[in-house]
Amino acid sequence: MKKIVGGITAAKGFMAASTAAEIKYKDRKDMAMIFSKTPCKAAGTFTTNVVKAAPVKWDKQVVTESEFAQAVVINAGIANACTGEEGMAYCKQTADKAAELLNIPSDSVLVASTGVIGMQLPMDRICKGMEAMTPALDEALEAGHNAALAIMTTDTKEKEVAVEFEVNGVTVTLGGMCKGSGMIHPNMCTMLSFLATDLAIDKSLLQEALREVVKDTFNMITVDGDTSTNDTLLILANGLAGNDAITAKGKEYDTFVEALYYVCEFLAKKMAADGEGASKLFEAKVVNAKSKEDARTLSRAIVASNLSKAAIYGCDANFGRFLCAMGYSGAQFDERDVELFFESKEGRLQVFDKGTPIVFDEDIAAKILGADEVTIYVDMHEGNEEATAWGCDLTYDYVKINADYRS
Amino acid sequence: MKKIVGGITAAKGFMAASTAAEIKYKDRKDMAMIFSKTPCKAAGTFTTNVVKAAPVKWDKQVVTESEFAQAVVINAGIANACTGEEGMAYCKQTADKAAELLNIPSDSVLVASTGVIGMQLPMDRICKGMEAMTPALDEALEAGHNAALAIMTTDTKEKEVAVEFEVNGVTVTLGGMCKGSGMIHPNMCTMLSFLATDLAIDKSLLQEALREVVKDTFNMITVDGDTSTNDTLLILANGLAGNDAITAKGKEYDTFVEALYYVCEFLAKKMAADGEGASKLFEAKVVNAKSKEDARTLSRAIVASNLSKAAIYGCDANFGRFLCAMGYSGAQFDERDVELFFESKEGRLQVFDKGTPIVFDEDIAAKILGADEVTIYVDMHEGNEEATAWGCDLTYDYVKINADYRS
Repeated sequence: MKKIVGGITAAKGFMAASTAAEIKYKDRKDMAMIFSKTPCKAAGTFTTNVVKAAPVKWDKQVVTESEFAQAVVINAGIANACTGEEGMAYCKQTADKAAELLNIPSDSVLVASTGVIGMQLPMDRICKGMEAMTPALDEALEAGHNAALAIMTTDTKEKEVAVEFEVNGVTVTLGGMCKGSGMIHPNMCTMLSFLATDLAIDKSLLQEALREVVKDTFNMITVDGDTSTNDTLLILANGLAGNDAITAKGKEYDTFVEALYYVCEFLAKKMAADGEGASKLFEAKVVNAKSKEDARTLSRAIVASNLSKAAIYGCDANFGRFLCAMGYSGAQFDERDVELFFESKEGRLQVFDKGTPIVFDEDIAAKILGADEVTIYVDMHEGNEEATAWGCDLTYDYVKINADYRS
Repeated sequence: MKKIVGGITAAKGFMAASTAAEIKYKDRKDMAMIFSKTPCKAAGTFTTNVVKAAPVKWDKQVVTESEFAQAVVINAGIANACTGEEGMAYCKQTADKAAELLNIPSDSVLVASTGVIGMQLPMDRICKGMEAMTPALDEALEAGHNAALAIMTTDTKEKEVAVEFEVNGVTVTLGGMCKGSGMIHPNMCTMLSFLATDLAIDKSLLQEALREVVKDTFNMITVDGDTSTNDTLLILANGLAGNDAITAKGKEYDTFVEALYYVCEFLAKKMAADGEGASKLFEAKVVNAKSKEDARTLSRAIVASNLSKAAIYGCDANFGRFLCAMGYSGAQFDERDVELFFESKEGRLQVFDKGTPIVFDEDIAAKILGADEVTIYVDMHEGNEEATAWGCDLTYDYVKINADYRS
């Protein structure tokens, strides 16, 4: 497997377009469309929030009930969440309009929205946006890149990635893009992420691979502990690579899962590092835990703690906050087993040794914590399982962005 | 029942003292002592954090195994958490020293610490502090007030309260004080709270009353979602009011519970309003929920959400964030049943009506949210249970305080 240049249009037969539809923003592109030349197997994972946005409900139905999907219509600015029957009707209207423009069935159109909750979509602008995008659909990497820019809300950077891997001697490509910066505490998947591959694979295996990979990638990031109403991760597989379709688990399936893991982890980490107001990527790695679930719970609690996040922002070696977060995470452990280290490109320092604080050099600690990617490494000495979670620091800018998001 | 002036020394026979022991702060009092002239029945609730501070472990043992308690020694600045065997030994040394000075048994001395985790207590200063405080113990309200000031860390205001009520024609007094500003997301009780009453009551009933009342008071506040390692709520009852001891549930017990509820809610709200960096008290009231537990879960999720808290700070009527928090809280509900209102002394405004957003006047909403106490009122229309939770807004100052707490 190797990383290549590109994003959502990297795989064969995938096209993208984007436009400034003035959904909410006045001075930038805010709609995107993804289209595959041929029908795709589709899989998805969605928010576990009880309050699900209308597009989440629509896409769940398409992914489970339609044999194929072929297009995704995305808007930024308004989330179409908490919008009642009217909001649901808008998903259908969007899909019908796209179907007409693209000459495909309505039930093969996926929709996704992100932005303010509790506002209705301006359907006239959504339709005009689709009319503008349809003739502009393009396989160029640039078209994919512009789509990644168009779906951003408070993101400061576009997020895209692509890889190539071999399946039975055939080169397969997997590309993707995502957005997400606030309301990030995914539970099943995260804000909006779209993946496209030319792999030929059974639909059920595609869904299974996605569900597995999500657990250790998108579900292991957090920005603010707020699980969104709109979390959506979709993958489209059109089979145009020409490989013999993967119909059972085995070496070829594992190769795909490895590539999928790489792409999901890459995008998830980009999202964590670009968390609202973030100045650095904050990673927690927990090793030798009793169970995989414990390792996930502990590492996620560390990066989710406001106090830990503020300490990371301040480069304050206040390691008690990480232990405190582990303590209330729900996992059971004995602090007398635990070792805790700070790590970054600036070095590695142990600060806690099996129940006892270590007297350490504050200057060295501050230097390590001053890096733009910082890891809290925890050895539980209780088993063999490990997990890594990603978040970001808590800064003044997070408050600034969210004290006045709607205007 | 009526509120009276006073705090921890309001009830008969309770004395307090405080001193500047230079545990961590250089320019203020940072130790306090509570002493009852006669032995007390004691009850307590403590943090559920797996990582428990040494004083929590000590106090749990005293409360469960000792027949009586008579003194509490408190320090601010260092939490004596994550300090291993050395930290546990310091609890015993503190109790032994206090026992010697006060001429009471060691196992009737409770200890409490708050401050930085992972640092050892300077025992020489702790002992000198106790030596200074013992002769200064005083029943005056002023002595209680100074104790409430001495136990503060990042608190901006001292927190104390007292009430009087009648038990079988006898006037009983209940007073209390607490501290707490950050790392506040109590689970069993909160940071440090001390209550003292001259009521005569069975020890088991005292414990039961405390456990019940805590559920809807201290356990319903949050500042930052971080459950502390040191949460401790203690109540001492010395019986000096002279009432016939309460030995069974009934009218007299209920009267006591009512007073206890008032005092705990009063202190809990003070703590929420004085959350680190807070500019206002943020209340969520959920009514007509399916179960009491649902009502608690939903109201607490609203006040715990970073995005809700930032919106409250910005007076941004972004009600979707409250619904989003309810949605990921773990409680099950149908958004098509839910009504949502903003309330404060400036007025009341409905913003969401059974699944559908209401178009409202933004100026009116901003005025309501601009008050110093703001309530999100949610009618679930699914049952008859209700609960209220308290928190505060998320401000620049929260980040500032916590990005550099130790220095």
